[in-house]
Amino acid sequence: MNKKIKLEDVAELAGVSKATVSRVINRRGYLSQKTIEKVEAAMAELNYHPNVIAQQLHTQRTNVIGIIVPTVATPFFGELTAELEQRLFKRGYKVLVSGALNNPGKERQYLQQLLGRQVDGLIIATHNADLPEYQHANLPIVAIDRFLRADIPVVASDNYAGATAACEALIARGARHIIHTDDLSPLNAQDTARQRAYEAVMQAHGWPAYTYPSLLDPVQTRASFQRIFTEHPEVDAIFASNDLDAATLLDLAVEIGYAVPTQLQIIGYDGTQTTQRLLPQLATVVQPLSEMAAQAVELLEAKLQQRATPTEVVLPVQVKFGRTLRPLPTKKALPKQK
Amino acid sequence: MNKKIKLEDVAELAGVSKATVSRVINRRGYLSQKTIEKVEAAMAELNYHPNVIAQQLHTQRTNVIGIIVPTVATPFFGELTAELEQRLFKRGYKVLVSGALNNPGKERQYLQQLLGRQVDGLIIATHNADLPEYQHANLPIVAIDRFLRADIPVVASDNYAGATAACEALIARGARHIIHTDDLSPLNAQDTARQRAYEAVMQAHGWPAYTYPSLLDPVQTRASFQRIFTEHPEVDAIFASNDLDAATLLDLAVEIGYAVPTQLQIIGYDGTQTTQRLLPQLATVVQPLSEMAAQAVELLEAKLQQRATPTEVVLPVQVKFGRTLRPLPTKKALPKQK
Repeated sequence: MNKKIKLEDVAELAGVSKATVSRVINRRGYLSQKTIEKVEAAMAELNYHPNVIAQQLHTQRTNVIGIIVPTVATPFFGELTAELEQRLFKRGYKVLVSGALNNPGKERQYLQQLLGRQVDGLIIATHNADLPEYQHANLPIVAIDRFLRADIPVVASDNYAGATAACEALIARGARHIIHTDDLSPLNAQDTARQRAYEAVMQAHGWPAYTYPSLLDPVQTRASFQRIFTEHPEVDAIFASNDLDAATLLDLAVEIGYAVPTQLQIIGYDGTQTTQRLLPQLATVVQPLSEMAAQAVELLEAKLQQRATPTEVVLPVQVKFGRTLRPLPTKKALPKQK
Repeated sequence: MNKKIKLEDVAELAGVSKATVSRVINRRGYLSQKTIEKVEAAMAELNYHPNVIAQQLHTQRTNVIGIIVPTVATPFFGELTAELEQRLFKRGYKVLVSGALNNPGKERQYLQQLLGRQVDGLIIATHNADLPEYQHANLPIVAIDRFLRADIPVVASDNYAGATAACEALIARGARHIIHTDDLSPLNAQDTARQRAYEAVMQAHGWPAYTYPSLLDPVQTRASFQRIFTEHPEVDAIFASNDLDAATLLDLAVEIGYAVPTQLQIIGYDGTQTTQRLLPQLATVVQPLSEMAAQAVELLEAKLQQRATPTEVVLPVQVKFGRTLRPLPTKKALPKQK
């Protein structure tokens, strides 16, 4: 086991060329399943592990992509990261993952290290979009739901249309006193679009709009939402800008004694697999996570190959109706329509 | 920007030694906040990015740890990965993350690449523990909740005690016809312990034990669980081996018409932050995720420094009582006690 095993030893045992062994290791070019198995068996038998670092220095490519998200601990970013990783792996890349949350210092340090040629490119879905490193970085970057710099393409779902559809689903079911909850931190562009859509819908009806802040800390968020019910006991519907907040509101409503959906309708946002499994009754706006990941990987590959890319790709969302919404009124009972 | 900036340029501008710049880049040794800031400001001004790959070839260290989990898309492994990443970053490591799920081919290929000196060590919480690569790998490895090899330490929580406590919480609240749901795939050692504990408790009471399988696909899992209610309409409690399954059972019970908790008590397992936010009413057994991550990082660091480690670290769990359990009967109404 201490004898230095070389690529040619693997090639000889497998009965293939050195180039083929190299292609199996890097999963590049056409390879039959039989060839892959022969080479892998030979590598296992010889206990051969290619020196990836030396290879990287030679090719100036790492075949590693950096992914920076707020955290992989929440359903949305956990599922997004899983989708990105799977798709990148199929194209021969591994992923360095970092959760930067509300820690711009960590994100800066992380970025500085990654920019030292440790990755071939970056996919960014962070809260700290204003870091100077994003202005200077000269490697391929794609952003998800964030604007970083004019030449960095953005993949997003249609937050404005999704929020409008959520509000209209509530109104079609008789809601009049709709309250919105949202992360109001200034860097949260996608939530701003959701809030703007809510305010536009309310204004079109001549109704007042109230947005209650969702905060980083769940306990503080719950306290913030509790004020909705004391300050606006007339509330008959809530549009929450994410499903975690919608769940908190649902629990608060039960605790306070509002019947859902007869007295209070609730609709969330995101519609992840985890939320749909844990809280299948929740109405929500489903973001096309898998498609967003696919587009981000596509754009990054284009950047890596120095092909032109669109500056923005916006994907449609879908309302998932659930038991936290009332049934639609039958036609004759509908309020007057245009 | 095309002029080749070197380490000494940064050192000169920051007014520190080259060694200090190097220590700031790698966050090694004692550094004052002021020094870090001076060096980072100089690096930003010069747009300097150290060539990490060349450094790695020189030191034979990558400062990268590989994490292999089934997927970061579920609350348990998403939160575990986030905890590991944060703790490793504080110690100067970045993480390569891979979700191998039920794809041993991907895990094998991934492992073969990582073993080519692309990482300094590995933390493994995978379903594919029987891969031959784990037998041959000669770099530091720590496993979470999985047995890989006699000299690879395992961090786990006390699955047997947790499952026993879950069953006893149900029994103390009057349950007699308790059914268990579990992932019965042969490599799932931690769930085996939960099932064994359930069966031991039932046997001690002279009651029959029934375990219904939880499957990879949520739709198939729901169909499996539906059979509980047709085959055992007398069921008055369910102990689910994870919270996602408990949520499915809760939704099924509502759909079929079992009142929870008066007719049917439900307790899950894992108790992640996400579950506690989305489904705060669920009773569950809380695994000490943060502490498990801390121990895994501690053991890996010991391995990296070639210090001796325990072969196993088992951490205590805690039952979280919730609204899916009935209140404890008052003392005089209690069944006979020892």
